[in-house]
Amino acid sequence: MTHATHPFDDALALDPGAPDHFGGRTTPGYWNMVGPYGGITAAALLQAVLRHPLLLGEPLSLTVNYAAAVAEGPFTVQATPVRTNRSTQHWLVLLQQAGAGDEALVTTTATVVTAARRETWSAADTPMPTVPAPVQCQRVPPGTRVEWFNRYEMRPITGAMPTQWDDSDHGSLTQLWLRDAPARPLDFAALAAMCDVFYPRVWLRRARRVPAGTVSISVYFHAGGALLAQTGAGYLLAQARAQEFRNGFFDQSAQLWNEAGSLLATSHQIVYYKE
Amino acid sequence: MTHATHPFDDALALDPGAPDHFGGRTTPGYWNMVGPYGGITAAALLQAVLRHPLLLGEPLSLTVNYAAAVAEGPFTVQATPVRTNRSTQHWLVLLQQAGAGDEALVTTTATVVTAARRETWSAADTPMPTVPAPVQCQRVPPGTRVEWFNRYEMRPITGAMPTQWDDSDHGSLTQLWLRDAPARPLDFAALAAMCDVFYPRVWLRRARRVPAGTVSISVYFHAGGALLAQTGAGYLLAQARAQEFRNGFFDQSAQLWNEAGSLLATSHQIVYYKE
Repeated sequence: MTHATHPFDDALALDPGAPDHFGGRTTPGYWNMVGPYGGITAAALLQAVLRHPLLLGEPLSLTVNYAAAVAEGPFTVQATPVRTNRSTQHWLVLLQQAGAGDEALVTTTATVVTAARRETWSAADTPMPTVPAPVQCQRVPPGTRVEWFNRYEMRPITGAMPTQWDDSDHGSLTQLWLRDAPARPLDFAALAAMCDVFYPRVWLRRARRVPAGTVSISVYFHAGGALLAQTGAGYLLAQARAQEFRNGFFDQSAQLWNEAGSLLATSHQIVYYKE
Repeated sequence: MTHATHPFDDALALDPGAPDHFGGRTTPGYWNMVGPYGGITAAALLQAVLRHPLLLGEPLSLTVNYAAAVAEGPFTVQATPVRTNRSTQHWLVLLQQAGAGDEALVTTTATVVTAARRETWSAADTPMPTVPAPVQCQRVPPGTRVEWFNRYEMRPITGAMPTQWDDSDHGSLTQLWLRDAPARPLDFAALAAMCDVFYPRVWLRRARRVPAGTVSISVYFHAGGALLAQTGAGYLLAQARAQEFRNGFFDQSAQLWNEAGSLLATSHQIVYYKE
């Protein structure tokens, strides 16, 4: 990584290959426990759509399903526009890696909808919560062993990761100020990645660290490119809460606002947990 | 339709064809304005997975993207298990119809995750709102011109469809008691269909009827088969609310509980609107 390349852009570097195919590879900068951070995989899948020569409009929705851990090394993203309408376009996206034999294994599936949006009547119905300014919230010190964690500047407001794993009962709400580390102007791929930034709600709810991993995440983009450009490298207020924990899976709803109070994205995920 | 066949089962009748392929057709019972009700299309896609000989476990999550209106007549559902793990299975699903020439056109795409669930520590974090019992809430009289509407017994509690389209300002919350009409024991496909039952939030928010249609919906199933069986043909409390309306698209979050207060499913969608 040279001084000129942000680790996020390094992780999202894709080489166009055969039609609809892009070559990429995992990078150490966003490594999680047994594979890359789920948010960076989501971003890479979206990036293939954004790099596609037939792209119409801007991202509207993204669903990513994590079928298996992505192994360290190269991967191929196949992004296919299966239906293009006047103002929306529907994509199927697959991330594949070479298996033990010659067979390509699907590790991740996704669907994306892009849209050419027009200005209409609009209404913001989820006001940003009143919270202290970023500078008033203490930053989680970088240097954790989970490397992708160091790629974000996180300033928790409430619901920080427990420090006492004592099986005590908590609500599942987390709010934090968030931006890339080092800071980087926001774009659609970075926003998608940030939607997956929350540690498992089950850890907070139970003050207990159990194995957990995202199975499926959806992101709805409310911001267009102009609003992302306005947001620049500023902080986002990121909020997440669970609705239900049942028999090995919980769901999470999340909202991300910019500092000016515009809701940029809403997101949902369903997460596996053990015990 | 004979006395023995519920219109829902009639609409979901699928003929197995080539491997991974199922033949179906639209039915008048769930017709909407320019195509079938989005909920019945979602249910048909899920049903193909449930009918597939390689199915593992029960539905955990479902995302359906509406790329184009489904035309009256036959369609083919292709359901492919792209990755099967020990306890989860990942599916790609496509609904196709014959185009003008020989070409098959994709009208709908979906991803499904199924899972073999085990009993674990669980917690319900979204209590059912306190509302009047179904019998105390007046039923929307059947007989509307939008035929699928007559396939549900709807008993609004708050946020019923406006009767005065006067551009007045409203919240976007709807709560109603809901079941199939005629009543039918709940299963996964019926629950998926019910997640799309809410009329467009933008109509309520603005008291203005503008063109609107779902682009993408996701459903997370918190209930397993045993809980659905317990629920039987009882009412569900269905609740929906928008978070943001911006430049032609709004999102909707929904929860469905059974009468005993168990959260059966949570759902989200992003919806196109005009003006």
